[in-house]
Amino acid sequence: MNMHNFNSGPSILPQPVLEEAAKAIINYNNIGLSILEIGHRTSWFEEVLHEAQQSVKDLMQLNDSYEVLFLHGGATTQFMQVPMNLLDTNATAAYCDNGIWGSKAIKEAKLFGNVNVVASSKDRNHTYINKDFTIPADAAYLHYTTNNTVEGTQWHHIPETHVPLVADMSSDIFSRPMAFDKFSLIYCGAQKNMGAAGVTMVVVKKDILGKISRTIPPIMDYREHIAAGALLNTPPVFAIYLSMLTLRWIKENGGLTVMEQKAKERAHLLYSTIESLPNFVATVAPEDRSLMNAVFVMKDPAQEKPFLDECKKLGMVGVKGHRSVGGLRVSMYNALPLSSVQAMCDLMKDFANRYN
Amino acid sequence: MNMHNFNSGPSILPQPVLEEAAKAIINYNNIGLSILEIGHRTSWFEEVLHEAQQSVKDLMQLNDSYEVLFLHGGATTQFMQVPMNLLDTNATAAYCDNGIWGSKAIKEAKLFGNVNVVASSKDRNHTYINKDFTIPADAAYLHYTTNNTVEGTQWHHIPETHVPLVADMSSDIFSRPMAFDKFSLIYCGAQKNMGAAGVTMVVVKKDILGKISRTIPPIMDYREHIAAGALLNTPPVFAIYLSMLTLRWIKENGGLTVMEQKAKERAHLLYSTIESLPNFVATVAPEDRSLMNAVFVMKDPAQEKPFLDECKKLGMVGVKGHRSVGGLRVSMYNALPLSSVQAMCDLMKDFANRYN
Repeated sequence: MNMHNFNSGPSILPQPVLEEAAKAIINYNNIGLSILEIGHRTSWFEEVLHEAQQSVKDLMQLNDSYEVLFLHGGATTQFMQVPMNLLDTNATAAYCDNGIWGSKAIKEAKLFGNVNVVASSKDRNHTYINKDFTIPADAAYLHYTTNNTVEGTQWHHIPETHVPLVADMSSDIFSRPMAFDKFSLIYCGAQKNMGAAGVTMVVVKKDILGKISRTIPPIMDYREHIAAGALLNTPPVFAIYLSMLTLRWIKENGGLTVMEQKAKERAHLLYSTIESLPNFVATVAPEDRSLMNAVFVMKDPAQEKPFLDECKKLGMVGVKGHRSVGGLRVSMYNALPLSSVQAMCDLMKDFANRYN
Repeated sequence: MNMHNFNSGPSILPQPVLEEAAKAIINYNNIGLSILEIGHRTSWFEEVLHEAQQSVKDLMQLNDSYEVLFLHGGATTQFMQVPMNLLDTNATAAYCDNGIWGSKAIKEAKLFGNVNVVASSKDRNHTYINKDFTIPADAAYLHYTTNNTVEGTQWHHIPETHVPLVADMSSDIFSRPMAFDKFSLIYCGAQKNMGAAGVTMVVVKKDILGKISRTIPPIMDYREHIAAGALLNTPPVFAIYLSMLTLRWIKENGGLTVMEQKAKERAHLLYSTIESLPNFVATVAPEDRSLMNAVFVMKDPAQEKPFLDECKKLGMVGVKGHRSVGGLRVSMYNALPLSSVQAMCDLMKDFANRYN
């Protein structure tokens, strides 16, 4: 059966990446060893690491004032590590609360300093993105989540501010060109558009570091990782290798401009189909809808189970909404072919015909 | 060329594990999706996680008073996470300093409470393991490193104490039967005997937790991970899958008794060859030598480079000692066939004949 992978993450990866990775598990680059068996301080792995770092800088068009780190821990660890490194005990950081991940980041930041929630969409169940809000000029930084995987919203603009910008880009990284140099720190878990679960990317502008008085445990200190050439401890070798392959695939397939164009095609097809059918209701304000994660519900909740059953029969996985919000969700990351979205839309139309 | 993988970690893995993993990268268990593309909350992955957890308990003969977690971060993160969870600000923990990793653990622990270094082998360059030392009865715990990857020493007994025992078993985990139930917390990076880099196992006796007053960031709190069923955040799915396969391989190949027997065969062959040749000198006290990592030097340092060159020509990788101690090191983990050690011994004898 031809599967359609709408998983929200870990999620679909490009087929050429999987094929190359499977080969490398047996014999990496014909060296006679598996990629899983080589030391992280060998030239074999250093080439992988350096290509991955350079690809990030190329795709983001960043200069050498930025460092690219591939860390353990997941974006959730960054919820802690960001304030640990950037927020002094008596200082205040500005946070936007647009969903489950932003809320978790806020909770962790409060353990290290003061948090000023300058924007929240909680009043309407996180179904929109705040536009008008004030960021105090003395905030240590502004933190926001560029794409809300669970709620299906996405920032389509970068907030205007003079304070350092920090963004969790876990679920829309490398899906569109952006003025990445407006950010002081960008982080993401790899398991959507940048590879598989098990590695976390941190892109940090060096001049933001070293400005607080807290003693930071070395393994949590970005400066220690930078000083050690991104090899402070044994890194997640295979996960970085997969990211390197995925970044290479993005570059070879037209870069971020093409990724965005394809994301728009997929999202337009899906959202317009939802809009055209009375059975399905998109829950997010049209201008704030995510190109990565389309969240919607059935007008008649009783139709949800039969619809999900039909998805399952057709090999469509990952369509159930996050357990915290329910409903339906179709994730459409870089590697998802338009044909999978088309198959979903065909099913929706067919279902609507039969269930009206 | 037939390679001989003496890497210290990431290191050699069993061939059947690599073959199964390569298949799973393309199509996991014939579900039509890659193991890299499935959600961590699917029954597919939960089966993997639960088998891995159960295998650990089976191999260690532990009951349900213990929890098995597979975390991000590497053993280095545990250097921080252990005292963060177990050492109150005014309390004192006892640490053994037997090498580079123990020293790092001590450095991190000092950020959280008091550290009493109850045993140190620094006086003789960490070439032995301390036998007689006193552990204060009020220590929060005793921390030691069961096998010193860099220095080539190994504890062949468990310290007698009434305080909770905490051990970093990164480089000899699952290489021998032990009274694992004497420990309150065991941790290890997976990349030696338990899989590939990118996952860290923590086995914790639940009754040791929740006894300190510090506020622990949730992602660092063992209790939060336990409460979330070891799925607090997206885990390193593929690394856990590899550990599950490696644990299955250990069980299918005779378990820890057979692993130990084979380790002894390999180590006996290598150390007795070293002892028999005038060119090579084992640096570690005979009774404290590691069965996993044999550390030695050339009597004439000028012979080191030609010897390493010959190793390279024969496909023997990982023979150079750690950059902090120099010399030579042959790591012999579970998956290393005796034939590789034999090939190394043959070269050593041949080299000694020619260079005497």
